[in-house]
Amino acid sequence: MTAAPSVTIDDIEAARDVIAGGILETPVWPARALERLTGVPVVLKCEQLQRAGSFKIRGALNAIHSLSEEDRARGIVAASAGNHAQGVALAAQAAGIAATVVMPEGAPLVKAAATEGYGARVVFHGESLEEARAHAGELAAREGLVYLPPFDNDAVIAGQGTLGLELLEQIPDLAEVLVPAGGGGLLAGVATAIKARRPEVRIVGVQAAAMDGICRSYEAGEVRSVPHAGTLADGVAVSGPSARTFALIREHVDEMIACGDTAIAHAMVYLLETSKLLVEGAGALGVAALLSDAYRPRGKTAIVLSGGNVDINRLGSIVRYGLVEDGRYRHLTIEIADVPGELAAITGAIASESANLLEVNHDREAPGLPVEVALIDLLLEVNGPEHFERVREALREKGLGDITLDPPRMNTAGARRRYETG
Amino acid sequence: MTAAPSVTIDDIEAARDVIAGGILETPVWPARALERLTGVPVVLKCEQLQRAGSFKIRGALNAIHSLSEEDRARGIVAASAGNHAQGVALAAQAAGIAATVVMPEGAPLVKAAATEGYGARVVFHGESLEEARAHAGELAAREGLVYLPPFDNDAVIAGQGTLGLELLEQIPDLAEVLVPAGGGGLLAGVATAIKARRPEVRIVGVQAAAMDGICRSYEAGEVRSVPHAGTLADGVAVSGPSARTFALIREHVDEMIACGDTAIAHAMVYLLETSKLLVEGAGALGVAALLSDAYRPRGKTAIVLSGGNVDINRLGSIVRYGLVEDGRYRHLTIEIADVPGELAAITGAIASESANLLEVNHDREAPGLPVEVALIDLLLEVNGPEHFERVREALREKGLGDITLDPPRMNTAGARRRYETG
Repeated sequence: MTAAPSVTIDDIEAARDVIAGGILETPVWPARALERLTGVPVVLKCEQLQRAGSFKIRGALNAIHSLSEEDRARGIVAASAGNHAQGVALAAQAAGIAATVVMPEGAPLVKAAATEGYGARVVFHGESLEEARAHAGELAAREGLVYLPPFDNDAVIAGQGTLGLELLEQIPDLAEVLVPAGGGGLLAGVATAIKARRPEVRIVGVQAAAMDGICRSYEAGEVRSVPHAGTLADGVAVSGPSARTFALIREHVDEMIACGDTAIAHAMVYLLETSKLLVEGAGALGVAALLSDAYRPRGKTAIVLSGGNVDINRLGSIVRYGLVEDGRYRHLTIEIADVPGELAAITGAIASESANLLEVNHDREAPGLPVEVALIDLLLEVNGPEHFERVREALREKGLGDITLDPPRMNTAGARRRYETG
Repeated sequence: MTAAPSVTIDDIEAARDVIAGGILETPVWPARALERLTGVPVVLKCEQLQRAGSFKIRGALNAIHSLSEEDRARGIVAASAGNHAQGVALAAQAAGIAATVVMPEGAPLVKAAATEGYGARVVFHGESLEEARAHAGELAAREGLVYLPPFDNDAVIAGQGTLGLELLEQIPDLAEVLVPAGGGGLLAGVATAIKARRPEVRIVGVQAAAMDGICRSYEAGEVRSVPHAGTLADGVAVSGPSARTFALIREHVDEMIACGDTAIAHAMVYLLETSKLLVEGAGALGVAALLSDAYRPRGKTAIVLSGGNVDINRLGSIVRYGLVEDGRYRHLTIEIADVPGELAAITGAIASESANLLEVNHDREAPGLPVEVALIDLLLEVNGPEHFERVREALREKGLGDITLDPPRMNTAGARRRYETG
């Protein structure tokens, strides 16, 4: 199923005027560490600093403005466990209309609280986003509400496209842009805006490898979808584009790339450490593409950090995961005689190489382990692979050889896949 | 010991020209959640986005520029485990001169690596910053290096003061500024700059309660110092001001406030969640003052976020600590018969109130516990105190009364102390 492109630069210019009073013009900021890595200037478009923490407010404001007086009086309903929920709620509050957001049961408390904080009614329903969406449709029918989709809507796409216009003004010598993909609303809007004004700027969509429906669609030349799968980039966990977004993407996007969760976690940690920016998994996709070498830019590159709504309860484990991926957290298991002094020898060897010992776990009951022998699992913080090898060597010199290394990593299949047009 | 103020607005204006090419003009950004809390406009000065992650590059660049040709050829030496290290290293690299940084043993690996990444020689020495500083003095004598202090230097203070000039331009209708204090270099510089141009702007210094030497000095009207104590705000863990910084602070600062570590952790989490900004403990002091109600602003307020160099290994535990302080992580211990089904009853009651169960720990060996009775310690994520009470009530209805509540909190003495001039 394909369609003709339905959103134009005029729609996006008009949207810009409509939403001007309701959004912030988010800053662009240099990323010098990424410049050193890639050899080209790299600039971060900090849309995670947008109101409600993501670009979604842009499309929501424009879509609400496009409603008739009558529809506005009826109120809107949306389904989302994430950024769309907060964007819709805040936009409705700004427009002075009623909003209902259906969230799946088990959505993060803080996101529900934020959505309610913007004045929306939150209804929990269903196990999945699909079930929540179905319920939103029922509510729309039963209560006469207007359903606002997350991306399959021209006014939404035009609203997201305003980010592209901002970018062109903020970076006059822009050569390339990396944009998170998902269902394609932001990507389609930004690509439409930029190609209309500066067709030579290269537009690259980046998607989570676990749900690469939009990449497969791009490759096949027609809409494809994939089953739901878990990914750290929950903001782009979408089966595929709609005919509407796909038509624009096919027309305006130069390349699609997918990144795996290990690269995404690494990118989140990298942004925290080197740029002091909290960016959610979906928002970190462009940085993940550069760090994992899935994409190599050739000119001045803007990376759209699309949102920062991370479930803070998960932040600690995401950081740990990213540090493992970066080779700075390493597990090491050593078999020792279960007698006094052995642990002192181990910690002494580690300290002699200035590594940090983060955790020590004893296991005296592993299957097949002789009595009076224990396994010690160490979690070490090191500077990288060379440092880790120095620590291992120091242990070996004390007769403490390690018996296993890191636990198996997450499946990284597809981590660096590129997609070409069919 | 007091002295006459030694830095003037002319020094700061001159510093601004000197360092212009080496720094970034960091953005100011609205903090709407804090506006709702305080009832006045609140703007964050995002100096954690500065090069090398803090304001320190400003003073270091200006101080290096003030050296004679001969001194520059000799090279500089500094002692620091944190922001001063990275600021000095980057400034020296930019100026093309050699830098040595002495860090105490056990300084975070990532900070040492960052300092080396800016081209400095890193020397580990001593257990404490004092020992590292003594060694830097020895190196200066032995190798003919110029010692660059972290704050007790007019050129350093004038460099930090450039942040104040930026603020006045970025926020023409500024009424109040909250500035992290520490040894007083940033505070003295910013206060000198702002009072010279807009004397009606209120300048408030904020310090960590654990090391409130600068507050006590302000109150006493003369330099006082306190012993070293641990604080989350390691960037301001300084015994007290120098005579030089104190003279300027006494002259130009309107009020000093101290915040405890619980408020600081809460502020760090708050900035991550509501503003998507990673700010270190010292950098979050101004936000901590507002959140803990230690300070109530009366007009448009700028909060200087002075740095973002958080040891990422500690981020998970800081977040957890902040969520406990915010009342969103709550421990609950229940005594149950150690028979099948009891845990299911507990988890069912918790789920019925839509709380999240983060951790479950069994204890069958607590002193005095009868056989076949177990203690279950639960870690719950809730929306706040009312939600927590609903969960407790749901448990009581199933005959499961809790026996203890949260473990004792960190000592918060002095958390909300204000200091008046003597």
